Amino acid sequence: MSQSDSHLEEDTPIQDALAMNDEVLLSETLARLHPADVSDELEQLSAAERVNLITRAPELISGDVLAEMEDDVVEDILPFLDADRIADALSEMDNDDATQILEEMEDAQRDEVLCAATPEDRASYEESLAFDDETIGRLMQRAFVAAPEFWTVGDAITHMRETGEDLPELFFNVYVIDTAFKPIGYVPVSQLMRAQVDVRLSDLMIRKIVAIGQDVDQEEAAYQFEKYSLISAPVVNAEGRLVGMMTVDDIIHIIQDENKEDILALAGVTDAGLADTAVETVRARAPWLFINLLTAVLASLVIARFDYAITEIVALAVLMPIVASMGGNAGTQALTVAVRALSERELTPQSAWRAIRRETIAAAIIGLIFAVVLALIAYIWFGDRELALVAFIAMIVNHLFAGLAGIAVPLGLKRAGADPAVSSSVFVTTVTDVVGFFSFLGTAVIILL
Amino acid sequence: MSQSDSHLEEDTPIQDALAMNDEVLLSETLARLHPADVSDELEQLSAAERVNLITRAPELISGDVLAEMEDDVVEDILPFLDADRIADALSEMDNDDATQILEEMEDAQRDEVLCAATPEDRASYEESLAFDDETIGRLMQRAFVAAPEFWTVGDAITHMRETGEDLPELFFNVYVIDTAFKPIGYVPVSQLMRAQVDVRLSDLMIRKIVAIGQDVDQEEAAYQFEKYSLISAPVVNAEGRLVGMMTVDDIIHIIQDENKEDILALAGVTDAGLADTAVETVRARAPWLFINLLTAVLASLVIARFDYAITEIVALAVLMPIVASMGGNAGTQALTVAVRALSERELTPQSAWRAIRRETIAAAIIGLIFAVVLALIAYIWFGDRELALVAFIAMIVNHLFAGLAGIAVPLGLKRAGADPAVSSSVFVTTVTDVVGFFSFLGTAVIILL
Repeated sequence: MSQSDSHLEEDTPIQDALAMNDEVLLSETLARLHPADVSDELEQLSAAERVNLITRAPELISGDVLAEMEDDVVEDILPFLDADRIADALSEMDNDDATQILEEMEDAQRDEVLCAATPEDRASYEESLAFDDETIGRLMQRAFVAAPEFWTVGDAITHMRETGEDLPELFFNVYVIDTAFKPIGYVPVSQLMRAQVDVRLSDLMIRKIVAIGQDVDQEEAAYQFEKYSLISAPVVNAEGRLVGMMTVDDIIHIIQDENKEDILALAGVTDAGLADTAVETVRARAPWLFINLLTAVLASLVIARFDYAITEIVALAVLMPIVASMGGNAGTQALTVAVRALSERELTPQSAWRAIRRETIAAAIIGLIFAVVLALIAYIWFGDRELALVAFIAMIVNHLFAGLAGIAVPLGLKRAGADPAVSSSVFVTTVTDVVGFFSFLGTAVIILL
Repeated sequence: MSQSDSHLEEDTPIQDALAMNDEVLLSETLARLHPADVSDELEQLSAAERVNLITRAPELISGDVLAEMEDDVVEDILPFLDADRIADALSEMDNDDATQILEEMEDAQRDEVLCAATPEDRASYEESLAFDDETIGRLMQRAFVAAPEFWTVGDAITHMRETGEDLPELFFNVYVIDTAFKPIGYVPVSQLMRAQVDVRLSDLMIRKIVAIGQDVDQEEAAYQFEKYSLISAPVVNAEGRLVGMMTVDDIIHIIQDENKEDILALAGVTDAGLADTAVETVRARAPWLFINLLTAVLASLVIARFDYAITEIVALAVLMPIVASMGGNAGTQALTVAVRALSERELTPQSAWRAIRRETIAAAIIGLIFAVVLALIAYIWFGDRELALVAFIAMIVNHLFAGLAGIAVPLGLKRAGADPAVSSSVFVTTVTDVVGFFSFLGTAVIILL
């Protein structure tokens, strides 16, 4: 990973400096490291090591480092920092990052920190916290650069030089507003830079502007950024007035969080971080396993219904897990593709019927292929043509149900307003287990007994 | 989704205009729509509708629209566009987007398009295509803004105004270079804008710069962008000289692609798009299902080994799928968390042992909980204390193996240089099926017979 170290003169980790008890080396190390690297080093430690380190060297926790840290690690260390230090760190940050730290705190500590903050900072934090969790109002930055359309490039540049410190630390676009403070276009800073100073913003601005509502969910905002390849977007209130901006660096974290949510939800894990203890891990995973136990018992009830057939032909017990397993995997494939297409908004009400038709045809083809293969295996293994026929029929039936469930369950959950990733695996594998055992054993009873 | 439509004056889709055979309405509609929306509309059509549309109105396909389109849709429509139109569209695009379109072409068409391009464009495309697929050299933009450190803000601004059209369409940082053309810092354009014109770049620049090597894999670059919250990064060659830049809007697509790869790989799907036909769907899914069939047969061999026990006690056939299913799900949970942590680089060689210990403890606790529950179910259902004991032991054993396999398999694949998401599900569920059936039936033979 030489690239990731290219900004470091040498590879002296913080722990080395602390182990040597060398305060000078420590502060030199910190000055040299990118805040993201300091944050990374802290994340790699165990909870106990981390607390020990922070207690000995609280100066490690600057605003920059805190802004880069994973939420669960922030939550772990906050109780060990005092309110003044946190308020100082927050004041260095953009208000959107500060709000995220405040979200992780216990109520009592948050009150303390808000008291320790300057009145302006406090007002800004409280304004953000008044919005719902995961909405853009909470995540947006309140500072932005706006200009009326009759201004020239020169006017805009003069304005920025004069405003100086009150501008956001980083910005990429100047939003052009009308008299009602509504964004009607934008000028990228790089365009402003190379344009002649007497050009009017109205002649320079890009009019196809995508504004995001302050009450919009973060997932929706991330989708807009991705779809329109945005670097930043103006945020507007219910009246369409410009109230803030979102920048793409914050959106990347949202995208990663949403992706993580999807992939974990499909596996039935509610949340997981590397900082979790074993007990937290159990808590994140047991609920779904419990539901899975109930559905597995349901499938077993189907088997129990046919126990007389198994006693007579034990080969049924040998082959039935193959039918259920193949259906479960085919269903999971269809489900995962559908969940991903839904989250990328490729799968829409307009294209849903085409997707259902495609899944059904694909399931029929796949079912046919593997029905032939399993029938051959059954015939070679047990030398029984009728048993092979049973396996053949059950495989086709189960694959059809698997394909349909794989696409219908997430579409149904979505239509019902639920997250299609959460709990859809349970539905699909329940269908494939129950149908798998029932079609196999049921056909066996009809044909073989 | 009123927000997504906020940049449209009205909601007239392209198809309406075409249905009315109204050429004027069509071109007006196109002018009003954001290229990303035109591209979206095309993606929602069936392959036949799309070709029909493009044949009737080839002007739909501008460079902007092509740049926004999904790769598989681009691949579908390219054969229906002539080389001159493609060359024109490409010349409007930044070289990184153009290269991606060229990648999707058949060799013969690529040669035609390269012939139709201007000599400078052709040279630039050929330079990009000389790099390996998915490396930064291929994806980067060759235009960037660089300045020596002794320049003042005024010098840099004058330089940009004079260079004008040759600058990249969008840029966010000016890279400060030394005499060997190595990047030693950067100045955000927004800082440049508000600084006094006589300030030297060396006084203004941020020295903690993250440069990316041109041979680096796109996944590594995406990780750097995410970790350091970068908006753009300089790309350097083997000697460390500045040769291009990457911007975050391209990185978002890479992040989404990598996420999609992970989630589909975990479900055993090689690739999938909404534009796929049923046959392509079968091709993307059958290979993994075939491997799953082999492992399911392996598990069945274990069952067959104990068929005499099942003939004697049919309850074994009823309960054994529960043990296997619970283990499979617990293993998939551990696996998914590990794959996600690996791709976010939270799980590193340093933290691996802690993760393995945590998974083992969690598996023991979960195993114990569900062993008790299953033992109770078995006892209530079949009234057999010894059968309950068998279920109890098998559940604990299988959960331990599931937890260990869930973390060890992806770590092992990673260490072996393979993608931990691909094929790890097969390994893990094979372990949990085989161990599940073997531990349950084996214990049953010892205790019950």
